[in-house]
Amino acid sequence: MTDLTDSIPGGDRLARQIRFLVETDRLKAVLRRTYVIGAERYENSAEHSWQLPLAALILAEYAGEALDLPRVLKMLLVHDIIEIDAGDTYCYDEAGALDKAEREGRAAERIFGLLPADQAAEIHALWTEFEAGITAEARFANAVDRLMPLLHNYYTQGRSWQEHGITADRVLERNRQVGKASATLGVLVQALVDDALARGYLAPAPEG
Amino acid sequence: MTDLTDSIPGGDRLARQIRFLVETDRLKAVLRRTYVIGAERYENSAEHSWQLPLAALILAEYAGEALDLPRVLKMLLVHDIIEIDAGDTYCYDEAGALDKAEREGRAAERIFGLLPADQAAEIHALWTEFEAGITAEARFANAVDRLMPLLHNYYTQGRSWQEHGITADRVLERNRQVGKASATLGVLVQALVDDALARGYLAPAPEG
Repeated sequence: MTDLTDSIPGGDRLARQIRFLVETDRLKAVLRRTYVIGAERYENSAEHSWQLPLAALILAEYAGEALDLPRVLKMLLVHDIIEIDAGDTYCYDEAGALDKAEREGRAAERIFGLLPADQAAEIHALWTEFEAGITAEARFANAVDRLMPLLHNYYTQGRSWQEHGITADRVLERNRQVGKASATLGVLVQALVDDALARGYLAPAPEG
Repeated sequence: MTDLTDSIPGGDRLARQIRFLVETDRLKAVLRRTYVIGAERYENSAEHSWQLPLAALILAEYAGEALDLPRVLKMLLVHDIIEIDAGDTYCYDEAGALDKAEREGRAAERIFGLLPADQAAEIHALWTEFEAGITAEARFANAVDRLMPLLHNYYTQGRSWQEHGITADRVLERNRQVGKASATLGVLVQALVDDALARGYLAPAPEG
């Protein structure tokens, strides 16, 4: 990449920031397993990383505890950038889950490391907080990260669930996080799953 | 759309919020005239609406005046939602510019109007502020909305500029806003345009 910033005051810092932003374009090529509603294609992780902070902004009132909303927005803007190197690990992929943390940790080092050190540390900390899921902000961010794909599945008649053989018990298990962050949104999850079962979008748990 | 929320406390409010979020999926189908770096396709407005708040977060230090950054982030998350109805008006399309405000105003009424009244008013106000471009936050948000497409054009060797016959004078005119919001980023714009001219990515102003 050309260094355009030699002649600009503080050019090295700015060059690193621009390099990082240009690198983030690659998130637009990372495909998820959820379908865009009304479109015959998978959603990509950049689109998803827009819709999650938007959903957090609209649904923040349902959080069960006080939230620093700007922190939630920042966390969701950066939460999937590591997928540029690590790829999207499908949430029901048990094999992929085994080395997910290691793959993603390396990705975070490389990609956030493109930034000046202070910003690399700030963004890395936001991502680590999201992954740990312990603070109120991370809990709510993780809840939104589960609720939106559930809505996508519901409003595409369960297409991705059916393609991957996902049953209601696994959806409820995956979305338990939502109820921990918000009682109201937890009730919504249950209503969506019950209705998806009734409509045949989603299969019941296998017997035995 | 099914009303799933009859049995949920405050269900009507939540139903409107979910309906709005589901509607926003359509922004993923609105194509812009800029190419994704390293990909053979146009960027869509949802991806763009992710990358702009991210760029604002990374570049906020260069704003020429004090900023309420969370307000900038919110503004950029919602700034293009009206394109679901109004389409993306290419920034160098002079005919499209004539009825842009009217088309977009109607879109804002309908789409933000899906939300509960208090949130509709809040989001509408953020969009109106962005469009007016008068506050410090709107000035910086608009600067980022110009800088990122310039970076996209530069790092795709001016492909979209060439396809649309855009010359350096028009790019500088369009990006004058950047220098008003940030002296440093204004210098970056000039350096990018000068280098794009030198490399033949961009043609000089027509003579006469």
